[in-house]
Amino acid sequence: MNQLIGNRRNFLKSTSLGLGSVLLAKRNRLANAAEADSGYPGLIIREKEPLNLEFPFPTLDHVITPTNRFFVRSHFPIPKLEAKAWRLKIDGSCEHPLELSLDDIRNMPAKSVTATIECAGNGRAFLAPKAKGVQWELGAVGNATWTGVPLRAVLERARLKADTVEVILSGSDQGEITEEPKSPGTIHFERSLPLAKAQSPEVLLAYQMNGEDLTAEHGFPLRVIVPGWFGMASVKWLSQITATNVAFHGYWQSLEYAYFERQQGRPSLVPVTQMQVKSSIARPALGELVPADKRYRVHGATWTGESEVSAVEVSTDDARTWQAAELLGEAVPHSWRLWQFDWHVPKQPGRVRLMCRASDRAGNQQPQSRDKDRRGYLINHVVPVEVNVR
Amino acid sequence: MNQLIGNRRNFLKSTSLGLGSVLLAKRNRLANAAEADSGYPGLIIREKEPLNLEFPFPTLDHVITPTNRFFVRSHFPIPKLEAKAWRLKIDGSCEHPLELSLDDIRNMPAKSVTATIECAGNGRAFLAPKAKGVQWELGAVGNATWTGVPLRAVLERARLKADTVEVILSGSDQGEITEEPKSPGTIHFERSLPLAKAQSPEVLLAYQMNGEDLTAEHGFPLRVIVPGWFGMASVKWLSQITATNVAFHGYWQSLEYAYFERQQGRPSLVPVTQMQVKSSIARPALGELVPADKRYRVHGATWTGESEVSAVEVSTDDARTWQAAELLGEAVPHSWRLWQFDWHVPKQPGRVRLMCRASDRAGNQQPQSRDKDRRGYLINHVVPVEVNVR
Repeated sequence: MNQLIGNRRNFLKSTSLGLGSVLLAKRNRLANAAEADSGYPGLIIREKEPLNLEFPFPTLDHVITPTNRFFVRSHFPIPKLEAKAWRLKIDGSCEHPLELSLDDIRNMPAKSVTATIECAGNGRAFLAPKAKGVQWELGAVGNATWTGVPLRAVLERARLKADTVEVILSGSDQGEITEEPKSPGTIHFERSLPLAKAQSPEVLLAYQMNGEDLTAEHGFPLRVIVPGWFGMASVKWLSQITATNVAFHGYWQSLEYAYFERQQGRPSLVPVTQMQVKSSIARPALGELVPADKRYRVHGATWTGESEVSAVEVSTDDARTWQAAELLGEAVPHSWRLWQFDWHVPKQPGRVRLMCRASDRAGNQQPQSRDKDRRGYLINHVVPVEVNVR
Repeated sequence: MNQLIGNRRNFLKSTSLGLGSVLLAKRNRLANAAEADSGYPGLIIREKEPLNLEFPFPTLDHVITPTNRFFVRSHFPIPKLEAKAWRLKIDGSCEHPLELSLDDIRNMPAKSVTATIECAGNGRAFLAPKAKGVQWELGAVGNATWTGVPLRAVLERARLKADTVEVILSGSDQGEITEEPKSPGTIHFERSLPLAKAQSPEVLLAYQMNGEDLTAEHGFPLRVIVPGWFGMASVKWLSQITATNVAFHGYWQSLEYAYFERQQGRPSLVPVTQMQVKSSIARPALGELVPADKRYRVHGATWTGESEVSAVEVSTDDARTWQAAELLGEAVPHSWRLWQFDWHVPKQPGRVRLMCRASDRAGNQQPQSRDKDRRGYLINHVVPVEVNVR
């Protein structure tokens, strides 16, 4: 898992040259602004209030994303929580409602899971027509090692009633959404998990990220980690778990973070859940200057939902032909995998569009085009990266 | 059911005087525009495309709303359908999918039901802060006699499978919603009904309204009538009925026509269904000039969802005291009832706020204030009518 990719020097050189791409220039300006103003060096500020920071995907060079480079998604101001005063309530449809302190949780048997978390709107900036929401490019995704206790262990202590169908996970973060779709006054960020997934062993209540206590931005003191699902399920600043015997349709899984699936041909709104099979190119970056007639090691990352990536392919001829890329390291469940592809750059100068696409063992493959039913979510269609060969 | 209310002459006099109310002036301007331009004399144009027309509620004078005064709610252009070519498909989770012509339906045993239909957003113009959607005042409601066949009779012919939980009712009307919340491309207007309500004897597939074939605006050649429910359930221009064994969450019952109910204190989005107990004052109208120290017969209408209105009360002192109004005629299930109240107008000139509130046999009463959870729907809180005593 200690994979380093050899393009870092090239990257610094190419981005500092400002290679004619408006997007790259904007990205650099934002990244510079972040370094100067925000205390989040190396992250792109998409929004300051609430705080939404993007990992600059071209800087990908390791299978584990350092905590200070990991994207930040928040919906409300970041709660300021004290470890000593903080409590987790478990209530609702259970025989033994309980309240746990952080020490209570730290004293339970710990477990670590390496899992990729991707925001359900990652890649939204590439959609046309534009979709509402934070305009992420490639980097609302990261991979970290999370340490905590299985959610299942806490649910066992609460002794769920037999008719429980879901658990509602509530964060301390709260506010009122005054733009459409408006919230009904002040609401918390909260999502429900079907019982089967909530009891799955990989689902954690995590207090550590990459071996250190969670930072405030990442959910201190405790957050949920739902491997295989988009990030909105991994509720941060967790304060309450409520078992329920009817399906929950909260704001964040109906008016937001929901998309259409076809039911007998008719669009029916369902909550966003599993990540979709996906691969992204880190380097070359959009608009990068690539020396003609040389070898260039294209690289990126690939991940999927509840399955395992089986292949990544690259096309350098506008999707006419595809060649296998090399998957690096070993497959680790719920963790992304880095990949590389040795590209012999053509002799003639000009623009070339690079594409990559992943497939998984469940038989899914990244689609070539965008499906309107997905609204501003589940963005995994092939996004070409146009580069300048000189 | 042949109730006439005695204020008609006063109404004409007062509205023609233009009594200083901006709302009244605007209403008259719109009503005049409708008469001049649209072929819908006597209705207020709220939108021309799609066509949304309001009944001017102060003109209420009969328990049955004439077809040409009945409010029109449409979401897309009105389909131009030919009776001969038209077919109704019944498919999905059933043993015997079938297709019926209009004659097939007219040859089945007919049934008539008098039912009040209210748009779920009726009264939206009175909300503060403003809610998005058509800005109806009091008149997106009407009461008519509908003739057709029970939906249940058609479902019996299709022999529903045992696991059917809902039927999806699809209209011929279609289009793409390009404002938020956007539709996934072109969609039809469609809503599902839980099986229990779909099989209830009062639910009709209607081809007549007030004894004549449906007009194009009201759903020709066939529409659903779901007594007790808000109007969005009474799908017009019906073309297809699809039985389904999973709950349907179409655009018009999730992103639109849905509100929040509390589930263990947390807002959870549910489709709009039953009408809420409500009463409205037809006369005096907002801003109307009322002669001091005279008797004035206040009148209006009252209705509810699956229950029966038990009382209407009127307050002339800002909700400090309430006096019983007289309910006119007989209680007819699912039909509104007219009411009146003899008000002794005070001697001193000035502004007076009149209020009315209804209660039903299920124990519901119109609330005094607005609940944010209801979004732009289910608007039945007490709306004062301010008049000028001179």
